[in-house]
Amino acid sequence: MRTTVASLHAELVRYGLVAWTAGNVSGRVPGEDLFVIKPSGVSYDELTPESMVVCDLDGNLVEGDHAPSSDTAAHAYVYRHMPHVGGVVHTHSTYASAWAARGEPIPCVLTAMADEFGGDIPVGPFALIGDDSIGQGIVATLDGHRSPAVLMRNHGVFTIGKDPKAAVKAAVMCEDVARTVHVARQLGEPLPIKPEHIDRLYDRYQNVYGQRSPR
Amino acid sequence: MRTTVASLHAELVRYGLVAWTAGNVSGRVPGEDLFVIKPSGVSYDELTPESMVVCDLDGNLVEGDHAPSSDTAAHAYVYRHMPHVGGVVHTHSTYASAWAARGEPIPCVLTAMADEFGGDIPVGPFALIGDDSIGQGIVATLDGHRSPAVLMRNHGVFTIGKDPKAAVKAAVMCEDVARTVHVARQLGEPLPIKPEHIDRLYDRYQNVYGQRSPR
Amino acid sequence: MRTTVASLHAELVRYGLVAWTAGNVSGRVPGEDLFVIKPSGVSYDELTPESMVVCDLDGNLVEGDHAPSSDTAAHAYVYRHMPHVGGVVHTHSTYASAWAARGEPIPCVLTAMADEFGGDIPVGPFALIGDDSIGQGIVATLDGHRSPAVLMRNHGVFTIGKDPKAAVKAAVMCEDVARTVHVARQLGEPLPIKPEHIDRLYDRYQNVYGQRSPR
Amino acid sequence: MRTTVASLHAELVRYGLVAWTAGNVSGRVPGEDLFVIKPSGVSYDELTPESMVVCDLDGNLVEGDHAPSSDTAAHAYVYRHMPHVGGVVHTHSTYASAWAARGEPIPCVLTAMADEFGGDIPVGPFALIGDDSIGQGIVATLDGHRSPAVLMRNHGVFTIGKDPKAAVKAAVMCEDVARTVHVARQLGEPLPIKPEHIDRLYDRYQNVYGQRSPR
Repeated sequence: MRTTVASLHAELVRYGLVAWTAGNVSGRVPGEDLFVIKPSGVSYDELTPESMVVCDLDGNLVEGDHAPSSDTAAHAYVYRHMPHVGGVVHTHSTYASAWAARGEPIPCVLTAMADEFGGDIPVGPFALIGDDSIGQGIVATLDGHRSPAVLMRNHGVFTIGKDPKAAVKAAVMCEDVARTVHVARQLGEPLPIKPEHIDRLYDRYQNVYGQRSPR
Repeated sequence: MRTTVASLHAELVRYGLVAWTAGNVSGRVPGEDLFVIKPSGVSYDELTPESMVVCDLDGNLVEGDHAPSSDTAAHAYVYRHMPHVGGVVHTHSTYASAWAARGEPIPCVLTAMADEFGGDIPVGPFALIGDDSIGQGIVATLDGHRSPAVLMRNHGVFTIGKDPKAAVKAAVMCEDVARTVHVARQLGEPLPIKPEHIDRLYDRYQNVYGQRSPR
Repeated sequence: MRTTVASLHAELVRYGLVAWTAGNVSGRVPGEDLFVIKPSGVSYDELTPESMVVCDLDGNLVEGDHAPSSDTAAHAYVYRHMPHVGGVVHTHSTYASAWAARGEPIPCVLTAMADEFGGDIPVGPFALIGDDSIGQGIVATLDGHRSPAVLMRNHGVFTIGKDPKAAVKAAVMCEDVARTVHVARQLGEPLPIKPEHIDRLYDRYQNVYGQRSPR
Repeated sequence: MRTTVASLHAELVRYGLVAWTAGNVSGRVPGEDLFVIKPSGVSYDELTPESMVVCDLDGNLVEGDHAPSSDTAAHAYVYRHMPHVGGVVHTHSTYASAWAARGEPIPCVLTAMADEFGGDIPVGPFALIGDDSIGQGIVATLDGHRSPAVLMRNHGVFTIGKDPKAAVKAAVMCEDVARTVHVARQLGEPLPIKPEHIDRLYDRYQNVYGQRSPR
């Protein structure tokens, strides 16, 4: 899990989702009340499996030589309250954060959005870092929602997945559709997709796409 | 053909036309009722000639260890109905998809567009994935049209060519002009190019440009 | 000169000024009525000193195995009529071409523009490829102008320099300021710079900047 | 310090903050009235520890084979008047320079801005290069301000830090938030963050974030 989480950070860099050290991936350790997360303020070039830190579900450091990410409390809250979640990603990716700065959900006007998010990408509350506020906002917004991504107001994006790779994919796709819908809106109104079409696209993608399991 | 198709996917990555696994190239096998296409949900880093799959013109898997791209039915429909087409490309590239989300054709206001597309880049209908709807929309829009690219409404781009490389070139140029015309329109109206000038530019580029055959 | 011109094409790629094969660099052969230019339709990856072609100042092929760039007549016209020019570059770079599509000069609102261009970047006429029209438009616009760059209407950019590297630098800086001024204008009007300040910045940069010769 | 300053220029390139040679990093030599700075007009590929130049706090060349950056006087002025500053960076990065071209501060509407800049990023005066005007503008604007970045009108960005790496980080984050806030504003007004929340975010980030010292 340390190796997986360390190497997935390279995808955040590859897709331009992060500047300097502002973004992190975590992964639940299967069968344990533990998760692996990025150390705080360490550059992506220097991340190794060994430099990753292991925390319990209250966000306490269990193993590792570095202080855990300053977003650890939010990740821990999600793992505590969403048992089906095996991976969490946080970024300040440009276009998604711009929607978040306006507090505006991203409307589902692309078939790729229907596929991955099953509808609009919702906005969570403004929350200060340092206690459970961010985690509560994520869980309250995503619970019962199809979208694996939430835009936290004035802040950035959190995504969830059955494992860290699925959460990274959701972060990559979230920025991709945030950018395309932004660009579309700059010169007029995108055409809506009918709700029943969104349902059919979502259902198909989640159950048919890919080599075996959809997400 | 497996090698060609596998390696052309790297051009989609290089020009930033695809995120994660959302985009695919196919090529007709010369002299056979078969085509080679990307496997579904496999990352571009992992594509090899061996991982490519071979389908017949009804989209049935003929050879390969993986499930074919979920867009296979659309590619197959094009090969069945457009015998001069030897390559098909599909992407969700940002600027082209933004025009598609508004259902708006890209006006021909650049000499490079006149060269490659011979006029506006047209919009095809909204179509759900899973049957022949997408293929029908592509063929109905491109048949008798100079443009090798069609913007499928709320979806993305399909391009065709005499071979896979020509279709990839059309996908690259489509995003390039979609972006430039978008940027031009953000601060005012681009100046039109007269239809007779578009004709002369298109004719020259298709017959004179390059080392031998134009496209 | 073949080596210089071949390798300078990599700068067009590095700065994202070109898609596929749409852009070219040429350089006058010192002391000869000849210039070296890119072959037509050859990808930047495949360019070598040997694949470059040599033309006389009427644009006729003198040496080389490939057909010269389809823009050769324009380059030749510039070398014939502007004896101080030792390098010419042509691109369809996105932001510069967007200004060109609107037929709008780029206003000098950045000190970096005053440094390199000495004022606005001017617009040249619409001209069809295939005779001397493009070359005439370039020379008529740049003759007696400080700017080494001209935006050819609905087309793209041509830049000149004392040598090919200076022309490439002008192409890179042209796109850079075209983008920054575009972005500035998206949210309001940039503040003007006084003409006398533009003069002082231009004079200083041309005579003091760098290790020895300014440009 | 030569090695540090030389290698930090690669971060300017990596984050796309500079075109051609337009941007520079300097670092104060600990315990001496000297600083190391980039040579003028030398490309980032060619920078080596040996090619860096050493100047005194009046900007006079003390050691090195090249002429120092044409921005040396501005760096020197900052080191003379801000003794806590150990590194200075100057760029013309696109989005920050666009705000500078309009003479408009970047409003603090992102938690990441509150963290790093503690509020709006301020605008400094228009100033010609060649004497102490730019340095005076930087110091007058940043003195007593939380922000380590100043947008110099119609010009670009200067950032300061306790060491060159901190100044480079500020330059990277400045462009990142300049871009995100620009994008947010394109489609409406970003939501404000309350001043007391900005204070709490800034305080926490400066004192808790990272492995040991916050900045």
